[in-house]
Amino acid sequence: MYTSETKIRVRYSETDQMGYVYYGNYPAFYEVGRTDALRQLGTTYHTLEEKGVMMPVASLSIKYIRPAKYDDLLTIKTIVKELPKMRMHFFYEVYNEAGDLLNVGETVLAFIDMKRNRPVACPEWLTELFAKQMGF
Amino acid sequence: MYTSETKIRVRYSETDQMGYVYYGNYPAFYEVGRTDALRQLGTTYHTLEEKGVMMPVASLSIKYIRPAKYDDLLTIKTIVKELPKMRMHFFYEVYNEAGDLLNVGETVLAFIDMKRNRPVACPEWLTELFAKQMGF
Amino acid sequence: MYTSETKIRVRYSETDQMGYVYYGNYPAFYEVGRTDALRQLGTTYHTLEEKGVMMPVASLSIKYIRPAKYDDLLTIKTIVKELPKMRMHFFYEVYNEAGDLLNVGETVLAFIDMKRNRPVACPEWLTELFAKQMGF
Amino acid sequence: MYTSETKIRVRYSETDQMGYVYYGNYPAFYEVGRTDALRQLGTTYHTLEEKGVMMPVASLSIKYIRPAKYDDLLTIKTIVKELPKMRMHFFYEVYNEAGDLLNVGETVLAFIDMKRNRPVACPEWLTELFAKQMGF
Repeated sequence: MYTSETKIRVRYSETDQMGYVYYGNYPAFYEVGRTDALRQLGTTYHTLEEKGVMMPVASLSIKYIRPAKYDDLLTIKTIVKELPKMRMHFFYEVYNEAGDLLNVGETVLAFIDMKRNRPVACPEWLTELFAKQMGF
Repeated sequence: MYTSETKIRVRYSETDQMGYVYYGNYPAFYEVGRTDALRQLGTTYHTLEEKGVMMPVASLSIKYIRPAKYDDLLTIKTIVKELPKMRMHFFYEVYNEAGDLLNVGETVLAFIDMKRNRPVACPEWLTELFAKQMGF
Repeated sequence: MYTSETKIRVRYSETDQMGYVYYGNYPAFYEVGRTDALRQLGTTYHTLEEKGVMMPVASLSIKYIRPAKYDDLLTIKTIVKELPKMRMHFFYEVYNEAGDLLNVGETVLAFIDMKRNRPVACPEWLTELFAKQMGF
Repeated sequence: MYTSETKIRVRYSETDQMGYVYYGNYPAFYEVGRTDALRQLGTTYHTLEEKGVMMPVASLSIKYIRPAKYDDLLTIKTIVKELPKMRMHFFYEVYNEAGDLLNVGETVLAFIDMKRNRPVACPEWLTELFAKQMGF
């Protein structure tokens, strides 16, 4: 299992008139989490796209437990449980500063060869980066 | 079953550098869909909040099938299959102009008494509006 | 002078915890307005990009007069006063349903040849579309 | 003159199909900058709202010079040149990691007593915080 942590300070623009973070902002927060997971692993999603592979999201699910508020300093915990093959699963847990679990989520991403616009397997070099961290 | 349809023209701000609608924009599109479902039923979500009941989202799931592009005229089909009780389920289907199914999703919403900040059942007048439409 | 009108229904995602439309959402609304201005003229911004010309924004200014609220049906009035040359000026007025003027704005856009990444003059066919409408 | 600096890493959700940060995202970035300016001064905008004063934006202007790209680490420089009275002026400069100036902007904010929904002068304690930093 590989876990990384990212801090996000809630912006005013991300609140709605309920006074909480709009439910539709968490997918972007999750994306920041998985971007950071790659960076902490020693690469970037940017690099992946430069090498001609993009990772569109195939599915998303979120369970909302408690709301986040303006100016809260959130911790996004991004978790990878298995080595990526044709698809890659990311799990997310979002906490506030008090340590309350605010929501949990999951995304499944595909690997697409940008030139041919076709699904491909996870590039070997990326699998290896995860394998090294996950002790395989 | 109650179904409503909403048209959304994709804005430039909603695309990302992949050239498609960012995956995190669909929750907002779904919200426009369910807002329209209430309006076509003869009420508004706005009215509900004015009467002291808000509907935070308890869970969200999306399965992405095909991407939407800038300036596409999308149809959001919002579907209610059962009368709301303590929670309300909305199902969504998003189509482009060619009739391709782009994604399907589901949200579960709670009813919260805004004064006491407590879960409550769906207000009777709202259940009745749905019941009338759904032939109960 | 060429004027077009666009309706935008305020989404929940566009409000903030003040209970109003977040000030940073108007640039996207203006963009919807100028996209519609082109469409009502008989072309689309999409077509322009397909022909290899993009229009990045060079400057933006907004004067906020009254706030917009959730579910308000706004009218974006987009105004072109002069034929585009190297740059194109759009002026905007946003009204609510009661006819109150909510804000006024202006954007200046450049024309960029996407292949050479260089500023160019407005394509002749586009100038002519405006000229015809504006009675030149 | 009081100056503060804030780092913002560009999110995928903030790009558009031109491959750059959407022009309408900078107002939110500026808001992060001025929020940080208050925090570095020893207070928060959150505190201000809790004390019953909100600061809606009265006007905004941006001059776009160079685009920002996905994953860029931006520096938002927020500048206050004069002590706030009835209104408060913030100036912004946005730089990328190479030190290129990407855009400059200005916002004017009002002070509103939230209970009476009326313009008021900047609270004395806030003026004093700025005065101390600005050497008055």
